[in-house]
Amino acid sequence: MLDQRGFAMKSLKLLASPRSAGKTVTFRGETLAIQALGDDSFTGVDLALFSAGGSISKRYAPVAVEAGAVVVDNSSAFRMTEGVPLVVPEVNPEAMAGVTYASPGIIANPNCSTIIMLMAVTPLRRVSPIKRIVVSTYQAASGAGAAAMAELEQQTREALDDANGNAVRTMDTFGMQYAFNLFSHNAPMQPNGYNQEEMKMVHETHKMWGVSADEVAISATCIRVPVMRAHAESINLTFAQPMDEARARTLLAEAPGVSLIDDRDANRFPTPLDASGMDDVFVGRIRRDISQPEGVGLDLFVCGDQVRKGAALNAVQIAERLSG
Amino acid sequence: MLDQRGFAMKSLKLLASPRSAGKTVTFRGETLAIQALGDDSFTGVDLALFSAGGSISKRYAPVAVEAGAVVVDNSSAFRMTEGVPLVVPEVNPEAMAGVTYASPGIIANPNCSTIIMLMAVTPLRRVSPIKRIVVSTYQAASGAGAAAMAELEQQTREALDDANGNAVRTMDTFGMQYAFNLFSHNAPMQPNGYNQEEMKMVHETHKMWGVSADEVAISATCIRVPVMRAHAESINLTFAQPMDEARARTLLAEAPGVSLIDDRDANRFPTPLDASGMDDVFVGRIRRDISQPEGVGLDLFVCGDQVRKGAALNAVQIAERLSG
Repeated sequence: MLDQRGFAMKSLKLLASPRSAGKTVTFRGETLAIQALGDDSFTGVDLALFSAGGSISKRYAPVAVEAGAVVVDNSSAFRMTEGVPLVVPEVNPEAMAGVTYASPGIIANPNCSTIIMLMAVTPLRRVSPIKRIVVSTYQAASGAGAAAMAELEQQTREALDDANGNAVRTMDTFGMQYAFNLFSHNAPMQPNGYNQEEMKMVHETHKMWGVSADEVAISATCIRVPVMRAHAESINLTFAQPMDEARARTLLAEAPGVSLIDDRDANRFPTPLDASGMDDVFVGRIRRDISQPEGVGLDLFVCGDQVRKGAALNAVQIAERLSG
Repeated sequence: MLDQRGFAMKSLKLLASPRSAGKTVTFRGETLAIQALGDDSFTGVDLALFSAGGSISKRYAPVAVEAGAVVVDNSSAFRMTEGVPLVVPEVNPEAMAGVTYASPGIIANPNCSTIIMLMAVTPLRRVSPIKRIVVSTYQAASGAGAAAMAELEQQTREALDDANGNAVRTMDTFGMQYAFNLFSHNAPMQPNGYNQEEMKMVHETHKMWGVSADEVAISATCIRVPVMRAHAESINLTFAQPMDEARARTLLAEAPGVSLIDDRDANRFPTPLDASGMDDVFVGRIRRDISQPEGVGLDLFVCGDQVRKGAALNAVQIAERLSG
């Protein structure tokens, strides 16, 4: 992402676990050796992009800030921490105003499903407040990492190789059949019956929009589907003030980072494959919700690349804003 | 289904297009030749199970009734016709009281997604009226027939055979990639922006429950996912009177044709594979909807075999009720 977007930098330092130390990565023609992450890794570093899980972020992000770096953290470790901005540049760029290279701190990158939802919903909310969201997700394997994508592929081969379709043996990541199947998101279940992935969508939305649960009520159901790397979401909205279908379509067509695929005549709407490898979040099935009074409800179907806008792209966009 | 359920009959006549005439099927040890469907096919027939599409039903169901047969029709041809009962035996058995072997007529088998939703929701509605449903579906290939299932399998082989995953060539049924992808249901789009599959869920629910759109507001989003033969549905409910989580769980545990898979500790909930080949509709993720006032909202996740309860099983259950 840094290379593709031509991110300006003087030098790049690659940090990982001791297991990866010594391996090399080629970046802009230079061969860079990966170094083992340590307490002295951040001396002279201006910007540190963290994407190694919550425990590494918790341990080392403060170290990096202490050493003078701005941290853009892709884990969930600091997302809900008071004073840590949680940012999608198209949604709430103002939230990161307090963190600069002169005044370093942590900026958290939101959950992928939250980013993709808010990219589609925020442009509408700016015109008419949203009172309630009911969202059901169709999440790709990539959200659980490269191992999950490999397992989906391997399981699918096993299922196809067996005449009865019962030969799936590789269940290291999820402990169940994912090929030609789907299941409730495996994030830890909370006492309220929602899983952590669903509650991230709720809490992170509230934080980014600066609203309470009373102001914007949200219910999410997160489901993993056998798709490789783009998430889809079926979103039902209740507005406080009228928001008609045509106005919504115009607002979304004009929104930065959003593309419409909404061709009713051709029955052509966003699919995960449309979004895979793309920067934009794709929106379609824009229609008045017939289950709510005219003008108050709207349905959307949204797809976004989990790896790009749902993670790496958004992190780099945050960094671009810092630098620019 | 007739054999598995031990359906009592004196004889079985197999009718199809001239193309299939002469082929044989073995039923209970007897080899039966398929005959070409014609105007005189129904003489002496008591019960005719139609499952050959809307146009065949429209043309021949009245012929069968005229000849003295009760028709159980699996197509959508007569579902919304006034005077034709639309029946799920666990939901509205009373609706078919007017049709008997002595007084033949047509009984329509509902849309698969509607059946699966109403199996889970009706037991709750009997205790507390439902005011609004927001449902998003995860529909299997089988809903589009055996050719669609074969295409999903073939496309998946093509995708796996190609290192870039771009080699999918077989697109006869849907004209797009289905393997490792999902898409808005291909049913014809309606002027209101909902497709026909979605409006079937709305209209058929209203008919079966005997309610108006004002009494029960419904918004459906129907999505096809790369799963073979069981549908899943994420269902958000608004009740007129309090319906708490524990009461809902008890009601669903006791409901005929419904099984719970709702183990929060093990993070184990219904999947399409749990439902495939099974008669029951499986319900889980039963939880208070945090986006609505306490007691008023509930979320469910439901899976049901599209071929069995969504079609053939329900038709045979209707026939069983007719027979006594």
